[in-house]
Amino acid sequence: MRLATLSNGRPDGALVAVDADRKTMWPAGPETFQALLDGAPTGKPDATGPFDVTRCMAPLPRAWQFLDGSAYVNHVELVRRARGAEMPERFWTDPLMYQGCSDPFLGPADPIVSAPDWGTDFEAEVAVVVADVDRGASVDDAREAIRFVMLLNDTSLRGLIPDELAKGFGFVQSKPPSALAPLALSLDELDGWDGDRLHARMCVDLNGVPFGRTDAGQDMTFGFPELIAHAARTRPLRAGTVIGSGTVSNKRDGGPGAPVAQGGAGYSCIAEQRMIETIETGHAVTPFLRPGDHVEIWMEDAEGRDLFGRISQRVEAA
Amino acid sequence: MRLATLSNGRPDGALVAVDADRKTMWPAGPETFQALLDGAPTGKPDATGPFDVTRCMAPLPRAWQFLDGSAYVNHVELVRRARGAEMPERFWTDPLMYQGCSDPFLGPADPIVSAPDWGTDFEAEVAVVVADVDRGASVDDAREAIRFVMLLNDTSLRGLIPDELAKGFGFVQSKPPSALAPLALSLDELDGWDGDRLHARMCVDLNGVPFGRTDAGQDMTFGFPELIAHAARTRPLRAGTVIGSGTVSNKRDGGPGAPVAQGGAGYSCIAEQRMIETIETGHAVTPFLRPGDHVEIWMEDAEGRDLFGRISQRVEAA
Repeated sequence: MRLATLSNGRPDGALVAVDADRKTMWPAGPETFQALLDGAPTGKPDATGPFDVTRCMAPLPRAWQFLDGSAYVNHVELVRRARGAEMPERFWTDPLMYQGCSDPFLGPADPIVSAPDWGTDFEAEVAVVVADVDRGASVDDAREAIRFVMLLNDTSLRGLIPDELAKGFGFVQSKPPSALAPLALSLDELDGWDGDRLHARMCVDLNGVPFGRTDAGQDMTFGFPELIAHAARTRPLRAGTVIGSGTVSNKRDGGPGAPVAQGGAGYSCIAEQRMIETIETGHAVTPFLRPGDHVEIWMEDAEGRDLFGRISQRVEAA
Repeated sequence: MRLATLSNGRPDGALVAVDADRKTMWPAGPETFQALLDGAPTGKPDATGPFDVTRCMAPLPRAWQFLDGSAYVNHVELVRRARGAEMPERFWTDPLMYQGCSDPFLGPADPIVSAPDWGTDFEAEVAVVVADVDRGASVDDAREAIRFVMLLNDTSLRGLIPDELAKGFGFVQSKPPSALAPLALSLDELDGWDGDRLHARMCVDLNGVPFGRTDAGQDMTFGFPELIAHAARTRPLRAGTVIGSGTVSNKRDGGPGAPVAQGGAGYSCIAEQRMIETIETGHAVTPFLRPGDHVEIWMEDAEGRDLFGRISQRVEAA
């Protein structure tokens, strides 16, 4: 199943199913993605019409819960080094996770609105939508609960993070709403889904120049079932809960990767590239996002086919 | 307006309005509290029936966002001392806040299910429900957006908190679902509402013995409008967002309060009483919650009238 949500003036939009060539769509049955996740029956392609991706909101325009992991521990290590913080050894065995803003999820072409001194960065992530998960669920139970996969840009305000995290309660102000790519795909639509991870290429262009071409199936220390079980240790997760992977990040030869311009796989956020620049030259060169900048994020399968449609956001001054 | 939500087998229940003497109720108009907050018209008391509080779920059984402040800085100072952590001076001017579990909010009589080594504690809090708040809203705009007040038990797993906070991303596992008292009250029903704070007595009994009789209008360093503006600095808050006060906590003569048994106002969580015991005798005496323990939380106005109905939860082993 390939789902999108059209804007209709209401907070949850109108759910449609889309065919494989993304030319036609039909009412998905339930009015909203949440209603489908809550168990309403699905529709049939008996009233197709043309699919226009520019009418899309986020496929799930708001969710009851968004728990974002940091499963690519290479990213955590680099970003911590970038701000002079050490990474404890246990981060390789005990997932990092915070609860993020799930109302709203921005649409794929919504602007990133931020102030210049907020140090605005993108973070390209894979996200899954689960069915009901019991409190205390095992990793195997968690695996069975995964229903849909989405592509997410977890915008991060690096200028606000050190001060906010120093208070000890995690992120609120430094994590504004995330954006989602137009399509949510059920697992049967994803040849690269191995039950725990999505093997596909995470592509990021910044102002039309390739910035990241990483492999989301590599270097993901914790699979989605482990992230879900971590989230569900002391609370149930109900249908429609979104679990994020954290920023996709690949190592190269056991060390940090290299920029695309140097033949590497690049990065899924600016902070990592700045860290590499600091290591190599003593100071960061690439600036964080400024008004007018343009971020594009998409994923490709092994044959180079686009999976979720494209996140294409411009930065606007707050 | 005095709202409650009856259990009907669906996640959001059925919204009813309740009269002042809590004997009769009528359909509130929209089917759910969220629908009312989203702008659906309200009903009229033309089809009243008997109100049975035992049928109540949380008035808002799930919300799109729950941002919980720590506005009683006295509580923060005591709990930090209890775990050997220092409190930075800026906590008196910059609110602490985390994003908590908002799906589900437990009903007033739902059990607290937890494992013995989780160090389970209650935290009696005031919570408000807001209408739409724009990103970057001022404190004055935030004040205008407050619609309803509720009473909340933010269950906290003290045994899990130090390890989780040490990871730097805030609470997930150490904050399981909170419970709400049966009634949500609009501001015109609350004589003790001054626009920023609720002046009313926060009452806690533990196993039938008075544990806390604090004043929620006192020692609240940040009012709700300041908490809301803090939450909305970089994200919009949409209708139905819940903002928590943090644990109500009073000083006495400029220092920490005293237990009810010693003539003090007592505490709204066990951790504070344990801290006082540690200061006085060198070690904590009061244990955290154990299976079979019974926590009751309610609020009284200046005339001693109950405001929100009663949270009455028993502890069950996970």
